[in-house]
Amino acid sequence: MTGRPCPTSCGRRVSRKAGFTRHFSSKETLAAEAFDYAWRETFNARIHDLDTISNAVDRLKQLVANFVERRGTIPGGCPLLNTATDADDGNVVLRERARKALRGWCRYIISVISTGIKAREVRPRVDANRVATLIISSLEGAIMLYRLERNEEALRAVQAHLDNYLETEVRVPSK
Amino acid sequence: MTGRPCPTSCGRRVSRKAGFTRHFSSKETLAAEAFDYAWRETFNARIHDLDTISNAVDRLKQLVANFVERRGTIPGGCPLLNTATDADDGNVVLRERARKALRGWCRYIISVISTGIKAREVRPRVDANRVATLIISSLEGAIMLYRLERNEEALRAVQAHLDNYLETEVRVPSK
Repeated sequence: MTGRPCPTSCGRRVSRKAGFTRHFSSKETLAAEAFDYAWRETFNARIHDLDTISNAVDRLKQLVANFVERRGTIPGGCPLLNTATDADDGNVVLRERARKALRGWCRYIISVISTGIKAREVRPRVDANRVATLIISSLEGAIMLYRLERNEEALRAVQAHLDNYLETEVRVPSK
Repeated sequence: MTGRPCPTSCGRRVSRKAGFTRHFSSKETLAAEAFDYAWRETFNARIHDLDTISNAVDRLKQLVANFVERRGTIPGGCPLLNTATDADDGNVVLRERARKALRGWCRYIISVISTGIKAREVRPRVDANRVATLIISSLEGAIMLYRLERNEEALRAVQAHLDNYLETEVRVPSK
């Protein structure tokens, strides 16, 4: 087809396709923008007032408590949960935003742990990445159970477990 | 309108509505049947060969390993994760099936723990319901992270954490 003029019918097809692509692309972008908004609200609720807590382990415990108790702003509790399943079906833009959000959350926890290690509040051999993964996984799974059962049992069980874990395996033992 | 014959236009509306309801109901049922099939396959993969392991704690550890390693049968890793978000939007039948599946999985873990307590393999004061909730929450959250990141890091981190938890807080200490 190189160099040959495109017949009218083909031109129509091209312009229809371009219209569809434009529409699809804006739908993808809209979903991504909606996700970003929801995530900002959610994340701000989770880190609410954490700056006022100086000890790193106490800060992590409050982060967990905020997750469990401050779910009011966004229906369903966590935009990541919806997006992880939706974005699986091919919305690349949305999936990338959700990954970025997840990594940002992970980095936040890692930075609290690193600060805690320097301040000798957190055991020096703690794997910050692993702790972040554990906290995020168990909270996200608990919110899934909360959505299915519509009661807070899983959230409270995970909170108690994480509190105990942070006290016994992350905090520097008191002398 | 009582006792008055229904005009033709109204009759058409009624039959259209009946048609829509039939269609909707069968769509709901179809989703629920698809879920049941996917769940059966998934659950069978998770409890694969567990009968051959006599110790309750070893059996739970293998259940966790099966979750992490036998994800091949159903795309996305766990039908519960899709359904928890989908069923939120109003498919009551599907949500009920997902809840039934979740409770069945929970009961399975609880029964392994109860047997373990009787056999003095599991600490007598272990809260079976809480252990089941913790295992399910953290595995489901890890599969969510796996779907977003498309790597097994979260699944492996949660497996190591649960293995350690089962060894140190669930298994009866060796004398």
